[in-house]
Amino acid sequence: MTDCRGPSMNIACLVFDQITLLDAVGPVEVLARIPGAKTQFVGTVKGPVRSSRSDFTINADWSLDEVPSPEILLVPGGPGVRALLDNRSVLDWIRTAHGRSQWTCSVCTGSLLLGSAGLLQGLPATTHWNAMEDLKRYGADPVNERVVVNGKIVTGAGVSAGIDTALTLAAMIAGETIARAIQLRIEYDPEPPFNAGNVKNAGEEILELARSGLDRMGSL
Amino acid sequence: MTDCRGPSMNIACLVFDQITLLDAVGPVEVLARIPGAKTQFVGTVKGPVRSSRSDFTINADWSLDEVPSPEILLVPGGPGVRALLDNRSVLDWIRTAHGRSQWTCSVCTGSLLLGSAGLLQGLPATTHWNAMEDLKRYGADPVNERVVVNGKIVTGAGVSAGIDTALTLAAMIAGETIARAIQLRIEYDPEPPFNAGNVKNAGEEILELARSGLDRMGSL
Repeated sequence: MTDCRGPSMNIACLVFDQITLLDAVGPVEVLARIPGAKTQFVGTVKGPVRSSRSDFTINADWSLDEVPSPEILLVPGGPGVRALLDNRSVLDWIRTAHGRSQWTCSVCTGSLLLGSAGLLQGLPATTHWNAMEDLKRYGADPVNERVVVNGKIVTGAGVSAGIDTALTLAAMIAGETIARAIQLRIEYDPEPPFNAGNVKNAGEEILELARSGLDRMGSL
Repeated sequence: MTDCRGPSMNIACLVFDQITLLDAVGPVEVLARIPGAKTQFVGTVKGPVRSSRSDFTINADWSLDEVPSPEILLVPGGPGVRALLDNRSVLDWIRTAHGRSQWTCSVCTGSLLLGSAGLLQGLPATTHWNAMEDLKRYGADPVNERVVVNGKIVTGAGVSAGIDTALTLAAMIAGETIARAIQLRIEYDPEPPFNAGNVKNAGEEILELARSGLDRMGSL
């Protein structure tokens, strides 16, 4: 158990145009409740960032070079990830921050950015179900699990998996008691009205709709 | 099943200082994927709104009077709710929007605002576990359930319950097939690492920590 409770626990969350906002907000709502934690939304440029729903914005209050050494590096996903996979300043920042971080964490297609930065070579990792094949490009070993912990790298599955990922991480950082209290505070006692949240249970029709509906229904 | 699919389905989500951001982003990530849906973050004034974590902001791109007739009214919660319980312009807006809406929905302590606007008199409703007693003040009948549907009013329990609430609502709006496809798209196949998400299971120590930790760990 790493003891990084205290005023110095900065969580740097990368934000970018076409981010899937729940990828970021799920984990932040958990991690920021760890005593002493502070969240920084970090962007390639400061200012408003358009989410993948495109009709609302959040703000990057920090630029990459202002936050070189966060204790926790959090990389969410979303359709905007594609445009960053060859972005040198973003990949350099991820590499540098990871070199100094206590924990490096991704949600959904955020793991593709970790991969493109060279962090997942030869390692088990996960991502959104629809991006599993993409992980292989970076030498990662895609694992069909909700949360994959490998040393200090923690990768989570698609979108909503960020909450499970962050609770797992919170327990490793601050202990199970704190993690459980956070779970109760956000009343995370899920009752999905349907059993369609994974590829195995969703059924062919739903899988097809979810896959082919990318454009009509928005992206990851 | 109400057919309000189409370019006219506006989701107006009230945002305010000290909002619990997951209360809003969880449901929006679901509802905005309904074909034809559009989200509007609506504030008492336009501009940046500080979340309850206080170290990051989202933007209210719309003012209350610009969005008088949304198809879906969504009222999230958070510590900032307290300051709005007597805010005439917010309560008037909620009443007017509700009078015209197809669905009126709250998450967490957002139901206290519906209550203060007079919408819950004599009706079953839910809220965050730590605010159940407050609901009674508004003549509501507090129900310890994850999602409570009463006519066109849908109230959800605390914070993370917004995802379950929105999937329930999405099925009523657009049908189960679409709702299931959205569930798969956001890979909502929850695997909480602990069983501490509700008051019954959390145990006394965790409950005490979650209750007494309000200041130290941030608020609802």
